[in-house]
Amino acid sequence: MNIAVLGTGMVGQAIASRLDDLGHSVVVGTRDPQATLARTEPDQTGNAPFAAWLDAHPGVELATFADAAARAELVVNASSGAATLEVLALAGADNLAGKVLVDIANPLDFSAGFPPTLSVKDTDSLGEQVQRALPETKVVKTLNTLTASLMVDPRSLGESSTVFVSGEDAAAKATVVELLESFGHDDVIDLGGIESARGTEMLLPVWLRLMGSLGTGHFNFKVVR
Amino acid sequence: MNIAVLGTGMVGQAIASRLDDLGHSVVVGTRDPQATLARTEPDQTGNAPFAAWLDAHPGVELATFADAAARAELVVNASSGAATLEVLALAGADNLAGKVLVDIANPLDFSAGFPPTLSVKDTDSLGEQVQRALPETKVVKTLNTLTASLMVDPRSLGESSTVFVSGEDAAAKATVVELLESFGHDDVIDLGGIESARGTEMLLPVWLRLMGSLGTGHFNFKVVR
Repeated sequence: MNIAVLGTGMVGQAIASRLDDLGHSVVVGTRDPQATLARTEPDQTGNAPFAAWLDAHPGVELATFADAAARAELVVNASSGAATLEVLALAGADNLAGKVLVDIANPLDFSAGFPPTLSVKDTDSLGEQVQRALPETKVVKTLNTLTASLMVDPRSLGESSTVFVSGEDAAAKATVVELLESFGHDDVIDLGGIESARGTEMLLPVWLRLMGSLGTGHFNFKVVR
Repeated sequence: MNIAVLGTGMVGQAIASRLDDLGHSVVVGTRDPQATLARTEPDQTGNAPFAAWLDAHPGVELATFADAAARAELVVNASSGAATLEVLALAGADNLAGKVLVDIANPLDFSAGFPPTLSVKDTDSLGEQVQRALPETKVVKTLNTLTASLMVDPRSLGESSTVFVSGEDAAAKATVVELLESFGHDDVIDLGGIESARGTEMLLPVWLRLMGSLGTGHFNFKVVR
């Protein structure tokens, strides 16, 4: 499949790398490809500059958000929650119309330090904001409840754990579930419409505190039933 | 141990019954014992009137919130989130001073229908409100992330699942962990101070949507790591 991954951070790299390995045609979208490639310093979390990652993934292309989205059949929003609505506006509603958009972002607000709060919650969600901004796009919220490495390789935990999908379009969710299964996910729960993204986005506060208690982000929730 | 359980609903009944079975001396607290015993109709969720439950548990006593708290070494808040601060005021700060208070309540707001929203979240929690209201009491938030029957019999799920503790006092948390283990919990994660109750209370939105998707509340989260 032709897939665009919007965002060059850890999540974008993990998703793009896995999709490339699985044989998809992957274009990573960024605001300004020349500026992205010109960065030679590690980012604020110590990750290598994107150019080094791209060199190691010769099958992956880099393009503007709009070009990446225009060429894709399915688009993954791997930008930060704070940037999401702007990134998707730059990608362009026309370029996203009729397509499946996998939304992984969480509306984390770091303005008061760590742990972050949520900029939207409880009576609305980022997933719903994205769907309202792009009414012609089939938004599916998923993978926002676990760390990047486990999003694409859940089997590295050694036992089954759960991911969730929320969205209005059943066929879009089925496409996304198939993609999740190709990553190794064997327990995908359909929570219902995009409104249910409120539930998974509000998992972040306990996820962040668990990361603190466990000293690692390498864990996931399993819904035991 | 002498234990008071504040609240006569499903959670209070489940906790009191289990503690009674385990050999503790249990007093259930209510606003007005005569009024509670006079009710002969099932409650709004179809449960039998409390008097019938009490008849079936001859080892358990019924008393006012204040009397129950005064006689107890450890107190369990099993009232609804909306009633909690009033119930604890009726129990009396003096009667609760120096004691461990296990807080199970969630700040659910049903005023706009189902699913409920949270009346406090993200930058505060009901657990913290309780601790601020009772500075001399050792508040431990726990068991607010699963259904009543699983709070007291997690092994009925057939495999291990997780519960959390949040609180400022390490000895109080150790006492509560021992109690949880006596119920059958074998994976208790200490999330840190009472502030971390924000995380577990914010699990309710996804818990409620999971109940809808799965068609049952008989499930729990396991933190796979």
